[in-house]
Amino acid sequence: MQNPIEFEKLINNIPDFPKKGVIFKDISPLLETNFDAVIQAMGEKIDWQNIDLILGIESRGFILGSAMAMKYGKGFLPIRKKGKLPPPVIGEDYTLEYGTDTLEMRLNEMPKRVVLVDDVLATGGTLKACESLCRKNNYEIASISVLINLKFLNSYPFSKLHSVLNYD
Amino acid sequence: MQNPIEFEKLINNIPDFPKKGVIFKDISPLLETNFDAVIQAMGEKIDWQNIDLILGIESRGFILGSAMAMKYGKGFLPIRKKGKLPPPVIGEDYTLEYGTDTLEMRLNEMPKRVVLVDDVLATGGTLKACESLCRKNNYEIASISVLINLKFLNSYPFSKLHSVLNYD
Repeated sequence: MQNPIEFEKLINNIPDFPKKGVIFKDISPLLETNFDAVIQAMGEKIDWQNIDLILGIESRGFILGSAMAMKYGKGFLPIRKKGKLPPPVIGEDYTLEYGTDTLEMRLNEMPKRVVLVDDVLATGGTLKACESLCRKNNYEIASISVLINLKFLNSYPFSKLHSVLNYD
Repeated sequence: MQNPIEFEKLINNIPDFPKKGVIFKDISPLLETNFDAVIQAMGEKIDWQNIDLILGIESRGFILGSAMAMKYGKGFLPIRKKGKLPPPVIGEDYTLEYGTDTLEMRLNEMPKRVVLVDDVLATGGTLKACESLCRKNNYEIASISVLINLKFLNSYPFSKLHSVLNYD
């Protein structure tokens, strides 16, 4: 399927950011001029019945996830890097290219159905860690929504994944 | 004026976070259960005519600002810590309790009217830096909206400031 051209032309490809050899997809022009349409596109294939909550992944996932929560009338909670959230939290370590990192979220007891939101899916390492964090924290993932899927970098399969812009 | 009780009872006061002696106001329960009402309260005193854009301050300002952009039909752009945004950016140094820090935003040429959004106003150092960053970047601040104003910590006066919860 072709990517929506009106969105694609509002993404700037920035060479060598944040490091040499990486082409960064800057979505700022899209957020500035087509925000509602982007959020609509990220949510329109999701069955919003029986969804309790949107979880946004630090930190561009906050921007997209929070807007989706507003548009679809849900609550919002952040998944953050270690040490940013006050107790009680639950954490999950995961492996990066060099070393490891930890994601945390507010400890949750009552089972809930959630939608996970981030801006870009690359290898999927972060999203994978979020999946296991959700499992440990009584959250059932009803859907995952990302704006951009860099398929050529994916290392993990995800089910219930929705992406607006796809790059093979 | 009394603080809205339905909001206040959904804020947890966490002692000694992020450091000893500080009482952190955790708004997670509010975001999870009353998100739309909070965003409504943050925006209802603002004249939304002729506003082009909402600027959210990293990183809880992303959550609140992005939801306001969605609710009021505006675009959104982030103000971030140094090095997070791709070029071209414009920056502003500011003084912290110990040392200095730098805020950056995407370089803007066409004059625009904006609303600045953050979660908490404490001393106001960050907001002050955002104000001068906006001036340098062709943004006129039509309004500043914060959820919580810790008035007893304020070091700077701000005009056009709206806050939902105020602590003297």
